[in-house]
Amino acid sequence: GRGSITLVGAGPGDPELLTLKAVRMLQAADVVLYDDLVAPAVLDLARREAKKTLVGKSGYKPSCKQDDINALMVTLARQGKRVVRLKGGDPMVFGRAGEEIAAARAAGLSIEVVPGISAAQGAASRMAVSLTHRDHARRLQFVTAHARDGKLPVDLDWTALADKAATTVVYMPQRTWGELAGKAMEAGLDPHTPALAIFSATRPEEYRVAATVATLKDKLDAAVADKFRGS
Amino acid sequence: GRGSITLVGAGPGDPELLTLKAVRMLQAADVVLYDDLVAPAVLDLARREAKKTLVGKSGYKPSCKQDDINALMVTLARQGKRVVRLKGGDPMVFGRAGEEIAAARAAGLSIEVVPGISAAQGAASRMAVSLTHRDHARRLQFVTAHARDGKLPVDLDWTALADKAATTVVYMPQRTWGELAGKAMEAGLDPHTPALAIFSATRPEEYRVAATVATLKDKLDAAVADKFRGS
Repeated sequence: GRGSITLVGAGPGDPELLTLKAVRMLQAADVVLYDDLVAPAVLDLARREAKKTLVGKSGYKPSCKQDDINALMVTLARQGKRVVRLKGGDPMVFGRAGEEIAAARAAGLSIEVVPGISAAQGAASRMAVSLTHRDHARRLQFVTAHARDGKLPVDLDWTALADKAATTVVYMPQRTWGELAGKAMEAGLDPHTPALAIFSATRPEEYRVAATVATLKDKLDAAVADKFRGS
Repeated sequence: GRGSITLVGAGPGDPELLTLKAVRMLQAADVVLYDDLVAPAVLDLARREAKKTLVGKSGYKPSCKQDDINALMVTLARQGKRVVRLKGGDPMVFGRAGEEIAAARAAGLSIEVVPGISAAQGAASRMAVSLTHRDHARRLQFVTAHARDGKLPVDLDWTALADKAATTVVYMPQRTWGELAGKAMEAGLDPHTPALAIFSATRPEEYRVAATVATLKDKLDAAVADKFRGS
């Protein structure tokens, strides 16, 4: 048979937040290449006979091996395998889908993409707080706090992040949140703006730290120290 | 039994893009209150015995009757009904979920939210184009081109919309796209920036018009005139 490559969004963690199409693709897979951001309960939705391979690309590791993942994906598809590349959240929102789509096309393979619920959407639904309340947010923006080199991206639009009529979602903020918040406040963001950190959104272990833009870093440091004390 | 209110994201149109949880909620509903943005094929996923009521709030109509929808939702839940409020896309992304959540809470009712695939995510997956390609987009922003009064919002952050390192998604652009594009170009957006209009993303009738920020309005006018000629 002819091989295929499908990028599938695994959503934020709760397996019930996968789409029907994502489950269908997982059930038809010969091979599932998954990220370490994918929740174990989501993997259980894959066809039992499928070979599941952790390709282990966490956003926080300096060596990302994206080229190796691309090569593996292409090799398996050329062998006639139905390859599902399973990615946390939505592959199209800070999921590096662009590079995998380009690799598939460069190899002459067609590629299909199944969108997923992104972490911000999962978190908003759990909190029952709209991302775009019409009295407060004219604009919703997603940024990553983690550039190719693991540092804060240098060319973020700081005035856009200081806009009080926007809701801002920061992906992968762990290492650089303090620096990001500082620069946004320098650009004019009100330090009293409510800010919320959410870990493991929609998973059983979900937890949240609520503060303001000015105080979130200290509260986070304290919460993380408390949570992982002794581990 | 005790009534309940669940806001459910219907996704962009393809019924396979509903989440497993959305389908479960639709299968358990006594009443489904749906928007005219919800695709008919999605409604077929609801429990057959559920009463399906079009509450008919299109984003384009001047009279939006949001208060009537809130009152109906609350009344039915108080009667003990399991009410699903089914909304196109993701209720938390320009879906007015905030007002319905507030109404439920004001009535002392609990409310649950099930996120959905937003139109931009559906469109990106169909085109296999990432919304955040790391070489081109540091920031992803969603705006609505349709304020409470049906006009272009006056307080959009135009410099944020002119940022060449951002991908911008404009929801409900029909009436105001030309004006929005003009103001973004005045604020510095490169007129040659690629721009794509997508109608009925992920539905059988999906179609797209590709242009640049400067030329999209004329191409759209021509395409729409052509498509609806004689209708």
